[in-house]
This record gives sequence, structure tokens and C-alpha cells, in this order.
Amino acid sequence: MTAMDLQLERIKNSIKTIPDYPKPGIFFRDITSLLEQPEAYAASIRLLADRYRDKGLTKVVGTEARGFLFGAPVALALGLGFVPVRKPGKLPRETLSESYELEYGVDMLEIHQDAIKPGDTVLVVDDLLATGGTIEATVKLIRRLGGEVHDAAFVINLADLGGEERLKRMAVESYSLVVFPGH
Amino acid sequence: MTAMDLQLERIKNSIKTIPDYPKPGIFFRDITSLLEQPEAYAASIRLLADRYRDKGLTKVVGTEARGFLFGAPVALALGLGFVPVRKPGKLPRETLSESYELEYGVDMLEIHQDAIKPGDTVLVVDDLLATGGTIEATVKLIRRLGGEVHDAAFVINLADLGGEERLKRMAVESYSLVVFPGH
Repeated sequence: MTAMDLQLERIKNSIKTIPDYPKPGIFFRDITSLLEQPEAYAASIRLLADRYRDKGLTKVVGTEARGFLFGAPVALALGLGFVPVRKPGKLPRETLSESYELEYGVDMLEIHQDAIKPGDTVLVVDDLLATGGTIEATVKLIRRLGGEVHDAAFVINLADLGGEERLKRMAVESYSLVVFPGH
Repeated sequence: MTAMDLQLERIKNSIKTIPDYPKPGIFFRDITSLLEQPEAYAASIRLLADRYRDKGLTKVVGTEARGFLFGAPVALALGLGFVPVRKPGKLPRETLSESYELEYGVDMLEIHQDAIKPGDTVLVVDDLLATGGTIEATVKLIRRLGGEVHDAAFVINLADLGGEERLKRMAVESYSLVVFPGH
């Protein structure tokens, strides 16, 4: 095992699995147990930042609320500005909105119109890739403002829920530190 | 001016003021413009972490969602675990709840029951101290789990909204990097 493998194993082991949450049959992967273990949490930020250092990135974008827990520290580690994507009505300046589908109904995400500029090369960071709906909306917001999405990076990929493929269809490469089965 | 004064001035200047948001007569202090300026954002984390290094702290607690943007990086800088306090229904393990008053009605905050243990010495971090309602609820949750609140630290104190005094009445000292008038 390499040093990186050991760190990835520590990260994976720190993530608790909650059976039947939020409903029967779902195995919820809980990143709050990762946050409580400082060495594992720091390793997750370091590994993501190391991967994207010196890649010409200009901004990091993260989606409310758990995306803030990884995107903001990665931005700080890379010396880049952090742009929050939020639920409607939370951002005080002029915003762009994009809707995305939930299991029942739709929801919206917003970004400040002046937060991304043409020429920006953006890393999207979130805690978890599942079906990819919120990340797709986030990518659309960045592109509507003229930014280029370099990559989407996650702590966890819930494989076989189609998120990776959905992002590929949008020409967005994704990277995840650890993979769990989606079911 | 000391080096610290210069950093504090940079932080203060990075915070945009949005008049009449979210309603007429309110001057909204926008920390997203701080996040977009990597040097100012990094300085805010460094100044908070430096103040609380070697103070015997065991955990950092931050409240959804903007508290994550400062609490999590401060926890990482101090090598401590980060405990999120969230809106109801967001935390997957067993939780404690505490209500707090809004202008119209009440809202709730939750913490994982196993996230704080008797003997923990906790720093609470949030972006902004206004009337102090959410921080009061957060302090109550920490204390109900047997934790001691060392201090509550903020990027911004909106003076004359009574937050500092409210926390003092709970025997919680607060510290803020920058102060704006509350009205």
C-alpha cells in the first residue's frame, strides 16, 4: 500500500454508514464522522488540493451546505477564491438560477452573477456524487457565466447511480477519493 | 498600523454592503465577497486560528450554512474535529434539538448526540453575530451534551443588536474580527 492508499483507507473508514436513512433500503454515507476525525478530514482536503495544484484553476465552487465543508478548505489550500452556490433567496447580490429535479418535484440553485467571469477555470467540489442533479445545475450556472469547468471533485462517489456518466455527457470529468456502492 | 491591523482592514474592505437586503432599511454585510478574495479569506481563518491555538480546545462547532465556511477551515487549521450544527432532518445519527426565535415564529437546530462529550472544550465559529439567537441555541446544545464553550468567534459583529450582551448573559465570551454598525 502506498502512503496515499493508506490515507484513502483512513478516509473511507472514517465515513459511517447509516442503514435505512433517510428511508428504508438506503445506506446513508455520513461525512460528519469524517469531519470529527481531524487527520482524516485534513487528508481529504490535502489529497484534493494536491491533485488540482498548478492546473491553471482560478476559482473553486461548492454547493450549499455540505459542499462548503470541502470546497472552501480546498479553495483556501489552493489559494483560490471560493464561490458558493446556494438555495434560492440566500445570496444578496444579483443571481442566476438553475432548477434541478428531485425525486418528487424540482428545486433551485443560485449563483452570484459577478462571481464567475469569462476566462475563469473552475473546480467544482462537493461531498458526494450520487445521481449528479445538483452538480449538473452547478455546472450549468458556471457555464452560463462564461466559466470553464475543469473538473468536478468529490469525497465520495456512490457508484452505479449514474452521476459519473451524467457528468461525462456534459463533458465534465469527475474524480472521487472513495467509492461506495450506490445501493 | 500593525500587520494585524492591515489584515483586519483588508478583511473589512472585502465585505460588501448590500443596502435594503433582505428588506428596506437593512444593510446586509456580504461575506461571499470575502470568500472571493483568497488573501482576505485566508487571513480571516489564520487570525481566528492563531487566537485559539494552544488553548486546550478539543472541538470546533459551526452552524449551517455560513458557519461551515469559517468553522471548518478554523478546525482544520487547529487540527481539531469539526462538528456541524444543522437545520432539522439533515443529520443522520441520533440528534438533540434546540429551538430559537425568529422575527416571526421559531426555528430549530440539531446536533449529533455523540458529537460532543463531557470534557470537550469547544470553540463556536460563525460568520456573523447579530442578535445571537442561533448561537444561543448552539451553546445550549453543546452544554446539554456536557461540553464547555470556551468562546464564540465571528468574522463580523453587528454591534448594537445585542448579540455580545446576550452571549455574556450565558457566560460566553465572544470575539469578532471586524465590527459594523447593526443599523
